[in-house]
Amino acid sequence: MELRKLVKNHVLGNPIRLGIMLYLLPRGKVLFKELQKVLDVTPGNLDSHLKTLEKAGYVKLTKVFADRPRTAVEITDNGAEETGKYLRMLKELLNQI
Amino acid sequence: MELRKLVKNHVLGNPIRLGIMLYLLPRGKVLFKELQKVLDVTPGNLDSHLKTLEKAGYVKLTKVFADRPRTAVEITDNGAEETGKYLRMLKELLNQI
Repeated sequence: MELRKLVKNHVLGNPIRLGIMLYLLPRGKVLFKELQKVLDVTPGNLDSHLKTLEKAGYVKLTKVFADRPRTAVEITDNGAEETGKYLRMLKELLNQI
Repeated sequence: MELRKLVKNHVLGNPIRLGIMLYLLPRGKVLFKELQKVLDVTPGNLDSHLKTLEKAGYVKLTKVFADRPRTAVEITDNGAEETGKYLRMLKELLNQI
């Protein structure tokens, strides 16, 4: 029953976290600042959702050095796989309607 | 930018509320008890999400009398329209990936 799978996904059920993963999926790694701009959320809000994704093993947060140290967000293999599964489930649900 | 629309939808962004609307959309009106079984959530949890949907004008809660009084949940025209819009937005997002 796909509806139950939708309801039970506590990591990707949140639209901001789903948005983060959707943006990361084709890109692999992006800067925190870019993600914040694209999603139009506050740094604190984005940070809190990234921590949840990091705990779940869906993303890795790293420091990169451009002109100055910046936080980068990288999708993990597990994160890409779980997001793919979730999207297939969503697509199936949408196709049933 | 579809990602921003995803992030900003506070009513349908919650997976339980989206699940409720997805179940209601082709059916129009269902019993509270049926909805609870299908989504596998507690009565209190379902009730709280239904109140949010009712406040947003997406559903109407009514009493029906079968063998005994029961709560029924009915989708409103506005609820059907907004859910349709959200699903089209989701589909567009998914098709971009």
